[in-house]
Amino acid sequence: MLKINTERLKQDIENLSQIGRGDNQGIYRPAFSDADMEAREWLKSRINEAGLHVHQDGAANIIAQLNPQKDIPSVMTGSHIDSVPGGGHLDGALGVLAGLECLRTLKESNEKLRHPVECIAFSDEEGRFGGLFGSSAMCGLLTPEAIHQAQDLEGISIVDAMAKQGLDALHALDAVRNRESMHAFVELHIEQGPVLEEKQLHIGVVDVINGLAKWNVRLHGAAAHAGAAPMNMRQDAFQGLAEFAMAIPHILEEVGGDHSVATIGRVSLSPGAANVVPRLAEFSLDVRDSNPTVLKSLTDTIHRFLTEIARRRQLQFEFDSLSEVDPVNNDTQICRTIDTLATQLGINHTRMVSGAAHDTQIMASRTRTGLIFVPSKGGKSHTPAEWTDWQDIYNGANVLLNTLYELAKA
Amino acid sequence: MLKINTERLKQDIENLSQIGRGDNQGIYRPAFSDADMEAREWLKSRINEAGLHVHQDGAANIIAQLNPQKDIPSVMTGSHIDSVPGGGHLDGALGVLAGLECLRTLKESNEKLRHPVECIAFSDEEGRFGGLFGSSAMCGLLTPEAIHQAQDLEGISIVDAMAKQGLDALHALDAVRNRESMHAFVELHIEQGPVLEEKQLHIGVVDVINGLAKWNVRLHGAAAHAGAAPMNMRQDAFQGLAEFAMAIPHILEEVGGDHSVATIGRVSLSPGAANVVPRLAEFSLDVRDSNPTVLKSLTDTIHRFLTEIARRRQLQFEFDSLSEVDPVNNDTQICRTIDTLATQLGINHTRMVSGAAHDTQIMASRTRTGLIFVPSKGGKSHTPAEWTDWQDIYNGANVLLNTLYELAKA
Repeated sequence: MLKINTERLKQDIENLSQIGRGDNQGIYRPAFSDADMEAREWLKSRINEAGLHVHQDGAANIIAQLNPQKDIPSVMTGSHIDSVPGGGHLDGALGVLAGLECLRTLKESNEKLRHPVECIAFSDEEGRFGGLFGSSAMCGLLTPEAIHQAQDLEGISIVDAMAKQGLDALHALDAVRNRESMHAFVELHIEQGPVLEEKQLHIGVVDVINGLAKWNVRLHGAAAHAGAAPMNMRQDAFQGLAEFAMAIPHILEEVGGDHSVATIGRVSLSPGAANVVPRLAEFSLDVRDSNPTVLKSLTDTIHRFLTEIARRRQLQFEFDSLSEVDPVNNDTQICRTIDTLATQLGINHTRMVSGAAHDTQIMASRTRTGLIFVPSKGGKSHTPAEWTDWQDIYNGANVLLNTLYELAKA
Repeated sequence: MLKINTERLKQDIENLSQIGRGDNQGIYRPAFSDADMEAREWLKSRINEAGLHVHQDGAANIIAQLNPQKDIPSVMTGSHIDSVPGGGHLDGALGVLAGLECLRTLKESNEKLRHPVECIAFSDEEGRFGGLFGSSAMCGLLTPEAIHQAQDLEGISIVDAMAKQGLDALHALDAVRNRESMHAFVELHIEQGPVLEEKQLHIGVVDVINGLAKWNVRLHGAAAHAGAAPMNMRQDAFQGLAEFAMAIPHILEEVGGDHSVATIGRVSLSPGAANVVPRLAEFSLDVRDSNPTVLKSLTDTIHRFLTEIARRRQLQFEFDSLSEVDPVNNDTQICRTIDTLATQLGINHTRMVSGAAHDTQIMASRTRTGLIFVPSKGGKSHTPAEWTDWQDIYNGANVLLNTLYELAKA
């Protein structure tokens, strides 16, 4: 079996983690920030040093190429080097740097390859301007309108942010690649959840990436004096929300699957005073499942519950659907290959579902995909506390390496 | 039976409601604002016009006096003319203006009175600087430290705010009156709740003012990715809060009394993002009951529930007690007098509990008290939609008038 150079990978991860690092507050490399641009330049130098071809497409995706050949589809890997504000050192960066290390190892191995092998650092995966920008561009999912409308939380448009760095956002429309140029895409990523650690397993072979329904929900009641309004004369919007929140586990149990999750992460009450019964409860709802039929019956059931709770409590219920994303299946054959190679490498592994979104799920619209997880300590991510043991990182990179080799070999 | 001059009272209520009125946004007369000072000057003129004595004490309470006599205790009425921001035209103002009308009517009636009769407009009842300031000063409940610390939400101290209006806040310490100067205090106020309207009754005779426990509660869990964290591996702080909120009706039913209420009016989740399981739920809890023993067992039971929920869900529970106010009983004899007079006036009435705090509950620390409610349309208050039918206002004023006369007559 092929093996990566662990010291070289560790050095790269540690070096990249210094770019955009605040004082104990994690890493700040939002897409097209100065820190992101510095990380891109650093990455290009690493690719050049490795003697690999480097290419930047219209979406500013950085692509390292081994054995480039026209008319032969590429085996691809990659992830992203942008970060959430105050993020960790592995989310995205691991997939890019392990991918680069795989290309270096394949190059040095002198193994004969039929396919070109590419490692891509996708632009704005994390969502400063909406997320999954680079992979969406490559898969032809962007429109000029969408690009013009994309802006960050401070109202800076992606057009302006890229222009400030000497880039033209509309060139992202030129980044689209045809299906014939792609043989497969396999990504290595940290799990960002607690499952592998809890089960003491070291590799997750993701066969499905959860679909997602995101709602903004409002329950309207009536404000009343917290002292003067008897309990049975209230139309307390928050009590309606609490009843719904407590119903979630039952809804998931009844109509959900093994991997169904639903989260209320944001709540805002109006008027929001300690001595006033809330007239409005506004909250976010994030529902995910790996099966589109199950996801549909979950949202249908949630809608029915909210309607029923509102009716019984004399509240008014309304919601905006912010996004609906179908579940994505990774390629069965690639999943089996990863299983086999992990076993051969002596690393215990499991099939699993990804709850989080990744560039893989966009790439799946154009090519066969695979997604490999390594454990996250305490399930933590998007925080400076994000951590994966080095041995798990090396294991993940070796599984990725042999998978890419298996797909690309002559 | 004596009767007030309804036109004169209506005119006063309408005239005062023009002071501090925003455009359709209600009345802005926070304590010691320019509008409050304008209302005070207007009130003093009305008292002077009526040929009554006017006095302003160290707490800037404005006191109209009929039949003043040294060494004979006063029968007192009153309320406040400050308002919440965006308030209605009756909360407080009704009690002051109806009281003034009672003094005018008593004066004109030439009925022989044994006791002086006073009508007081108390300073900062609504709480720009904490609330119940004027009545607390009169009852000797203020300290120099408390006065120095009192400030509004914008950080303006009561000392500075009063100084700006030519008043010395520390003179409030001189406003204290001894018990011997007070014979009784009776207040007329709008109900601010829906009970009288629901029951189609026109006078509420308040025998108890609810006690109050006010907590700020924090449930600490662990943040997690809304996609990647399975439901059974979460420590979701909001789900803990929802479970507690749903337990409130059961707690009230099991250990509460007929008038127990509990309200969660403010909720804040951290980090408060749609795709992150909340690590912290911070919320207000306002619990009221008319019986101190019941109030104590309510807070004890709530504490036990929160502890148990936190333990079971692997959350941490902590709370700050912001205030604890004991229930206050009005004088039995005065309540009976009000009952009798309402009956004689042909107005249907009921005994009831006040959920809201009023100057009466402070005055009860020094003298015998009574509190008369008139219906609030839809239970609404602290909003421009606050409304009481004119006939209910006149009824309330006539009940107050005859009660004051009964207490003060020779």
